[in-house]
Amino acid sequence: MIRRDIPDIIVSRLPIYLRALRHMQAQKQQTTSSQELGEQVGISAAQIRKDLSQFGEFGKQGTGYNIAFLIGKLREILQLEKVWDVALIGMGDMGHALARYPGFTDRGFRVAMVFDNDPGKIGTQVGDFEVRNMKGIVDTIREAEIKVAMVCVPAEAAQEVANQLVVAGVKAILNYAPISLSVPEGVRVQYLDPSIGLQRMTYYLG
Amino acid sequence: MIRRDIPDIIVSRLPIYLRALRHMQAQKQQTTSSQELGEQVGISAAQIRKDLSQFGEFGKQGTGYNIAFLIGKLREILQLEKVWDVALIGMGDMGHALARYPGFTDRGFRVAMVFDNDPGKIGTQVGDFEVRNMKGIVDTIREAEIKVAMVCVPAEAAQEVANQLVVAGVKAILNYAPISLSVPEGVRVQYLDPSIGLQRMTYYLG
Repeated sequence: MIRRDIPDIIVSRLPIYLRALRHMQAQKQQTTSSQELGEQVGISAAQIRKDLSQFGEFGKQGTGYNIAFLIGKLREILQLEKVWDVALIGMGDMGHALARYPGFTDRGFRVAMVFDNDPGKIGTQVGDFEVRNMKGIVDTIREAEIKVAMVCVPAEAAQEVANQLVVAGVKAILNYAPISLSVPEGVRVQYLDPSIGLQRMTYYLG
Repeated sequence: MIRRDIPDIIVSRLPIYLRALRHMQAQKQQTTSSQELGEQVGISAAQIRKDLSQFGEFGKQGTGYNIAFLIGKLREILQLEKVWDVALIGMGDMGHALARYPGFTDRGFRVAMVFDNDPGKIGTQVGDFEVRNMKGIVDTIREAEIKVAMVCVPAEAAQEVANQLVVAGVKAILNYAPISLSVPEGVRVQYLDPSIGLQRMTYYLG
């Protein structure tokens, strides 16, 4: 499979299909159609067929998609068959929530270490983790070969944290700070800013 | 301006432009170009010009965009000139984080009330809020005419909560539960599931 040639907008929809398929699977469903999947995720059936066709032939005309097979394929495409270790930076409210978030299990991720720069927090226990000192973050992350990080520090600290993560070799940052981060090419940032999620919807409110 | 005729994919990019523009404004910048904005947000300059042209003529050839003017226009398009009251349901870790999240201020939203069904939490104080009983949620939200909600309850409770929100008249739900919600037409759901944010990036990791 050729990576990087698929438009990002298509890649961005695959996790949404995956979640809906797993939901169907949890309800003991065996097959689905692009119509049904489309209704679940709010994307047209034609778009779903087009998106999936980028990666091969997954469904059969008339019989639809085998859910278990399609889940396996999407996990393979998204490289979720391994479990990615994730570094979590910033142990405020959001960091606490993420350190204990149950929704990573079996979805490709595992929080592996947590960091803060507050002497009152360093060394304390959050869930299964002892909070590490930000001072050693570059070496620690580099040695652990961690490529994925979540940033939950205040806006004014986020760029500096991102810079250190980049030096440490991190290639994917999930940013909760309400600020745009500058990163070099080859490093990806996703924003999970609740204001942005809400702003996408207010356009439609009467 | 005609609402609903603009593709959702374009609407979804406007909050991202808005955040980047506000970041520029905070740094005392007065004008920008589609090139510069594109580099900040990882979207092509041509796409940005095309997106913005859906709503009118915002920039001048050669001189670019006036940042303050464009921010005002985007806020107007996204209906962020008013402050939307938001109901927050589920006072676990994530609910606590959102109740105290500083990033809503001046971005169009205000948490107005928080709910839980746990007798040990009902009546307790979280930040500025007294936790309300889920039992009264439909009437309370309807009376307050709240149209926007954030759902942070466990996956198995999320659909039932969403059903009650719909009955109460909520039209926009930001869902943190790791599950797809079924809602009737006219109600929008956005998912801020950290696994989804991470899965969008692992595709690109070597």
